[in-house]
Amino acid sequence: MSRTIGEIIEWLSEGADPAQPTVDRLDPGSRETAVTGIVTAFSASQAVIERALTLGANFIISHEGVYYSHQGETGLLHGDPVFMEKAALIARSGIGIYRFHDAIHRYRPDGIMAGLLRELGWERYVRQQQPAAAILELPARSVKTIAEELKKALGIAYVRAAGDLSMPCSRIGVLVGYRGGGSSAIPLFHKEKVDLVIAGEGPEWETPEYVKDAVHQGRSTALIMLGHAESEAPGMKDLADRLTEQFPELPVYFIKDQPVFQII
Amino acid sequence: MSRTIGEIIEWLSEGADPAQPTVDRLDPGSRETAVTGIVTAFSASQAVIERALTLGANFIISHEGVYYSHQGETGLLHGDPVFMEKAALIARSGIGIYRFHDAIHRYRPDGIMAGLLRELGWERYVRQQQPAAAILELPARSVKTIAEELKKALGIAYVRAAGDLSMPCSRIGVLVGYRGGGSSAIPLFHKEKVDLVIAGEGPEWETPEYVKDAVHQGRSTALIMLGHAESEAPGMKDLADRLTEQFPELPVYFIKDQPVFQII
Repeated sequence: MSRTIGEIIEWLSEGADPAQPTVDRLDPGSRETAVTGIVTAFSASQAVIERALTLGANFIISHEGVYYSHQGETGLLHGDPVFMEKAALIARSGIGIYRFHDAIHRYRPDGIMAGLLRELGWERYVRQQQPAAAILELPARSVKTIAEELKKALGIAYVRAAGDLSMPCSRIGVLVGYRGGGSSAIPLFHKEKVDLVIAGEGPEWETPEYVKDAVHQGRSTALIMLGHAESEAPGMKDLADRLTEQFPELPVYFIKDQPVFQII
Repeated sequence: MSRTIGEIIEWLSEGADPAQPTVDRLDPGSRETAVTGIVTAFSASQAVIERALTLGANFIISHEGVYYSHQGETGLLHGDPVFMEKAALIARSGIGIYRFHDAIHRYRPDGIMAGLLRELGWERYVRQQQPAAAILELPARSVKTIAEELKKALGIAYVRAAGDLSMPCSRIGVLVGYRGGGSSAIPLFHKEKVDLVIAGEGPEWETPEYVKDAVHQGRSTALIMLGHAESEAPGMKDLADRLTEQFPELPVYFIKDQPVFQII
């Protein structure tokens, strides 16, 4: 049975409130196009697009935008050769790209969060799912041990950590993506009494400075930043599994891209 | 000769346009207080405040805010024990804290940028000082070599790097603090033809994703993120030197705080 891009998007958007503002959109692409295969990824990077074409997939569902901007602005890229080469590849290939950011975060529980917790095997530890955070209670272990577990489970080379690494943690707040900022993360320490926050990324002068002060005051407080893509890619991998289940007639691939940074 | 906090602030603000909106302000403190000693720091952290008191200094000039927020909002910290303990220490000590962020960035050249370039010994390589960036031309060397030089000169344990580390770089764009975001950093690659951008920090889905695409397209493009404090603390160190010169009768100290993160 043939499926169109529009049918896939309809399924993705089920339950999402259409009245809320959103960055989610099909661009480029047509809802009438018959899907030959689906790729999900954190970002529709040059490498991901090329790989999708090699796989014969004509539809990419990516969490972040194509052109390095949350709001999809491309004005500053006018005349940029990287932008032009990528845009030319996309136009030439006829591939459809759907930015799938807000609706998956608005699933209850958040689909990106659910994917991360599933990848970690931590679903059984969830005590509370808040709109932007999950509160977990794990058997106590040190920050260092948890960091090593995260690296192994997610296949990542490093994490950035703040606080006393030997400190035992049990109550943990998890935040994906850019929710590591102060307004999302700091209240988890004092309102939810977590020992440790695990997040994607956030401004360095907010939560990390709070944790530095807390530790200097002798408090059991720690922070692990996984990286933005590292915290959200598992949600897109999980989405690929759900798409496979829902549309068994279609080839569906999750592409794990290279990490943006290495440590020197 | 006795100096007041107000006199120091007046000197700091010379040439700054008072009509522009600013986060710079004395809070807490009184402009009439006689200064016993000055501490400059990236952040007025708990550790920095305690050290200032030990040194007998009653005036801190800090680049970032006291309470983990650029705009100085403390509403979310209501009832937070870390906030309360820090606020109590500040109140008890009678110390004055001046947030000195916008005016120093509005010096021409930017005082924070100038301090970083001085610390690196790179002033002779500057080709152009733009409002938010400096364009440099260095003798060609690899990204890896430059990263090692940066670590040594700034006394930092690691940097995050994107791109081909063996790539030789000559033309470099430098951005301090949070200016590593796409709107500031990406145009340096295509408009200023830099090979490498060195910045403090910025959202991971912007400049780092651009660099990943550029490298995948076979372009000589690289990025080094120093860390926010790591890129701006040298400007506050440099400020301490200038304060010593201007007010030789006052003890002036730069305090280098612990890094917020370690790598696991």
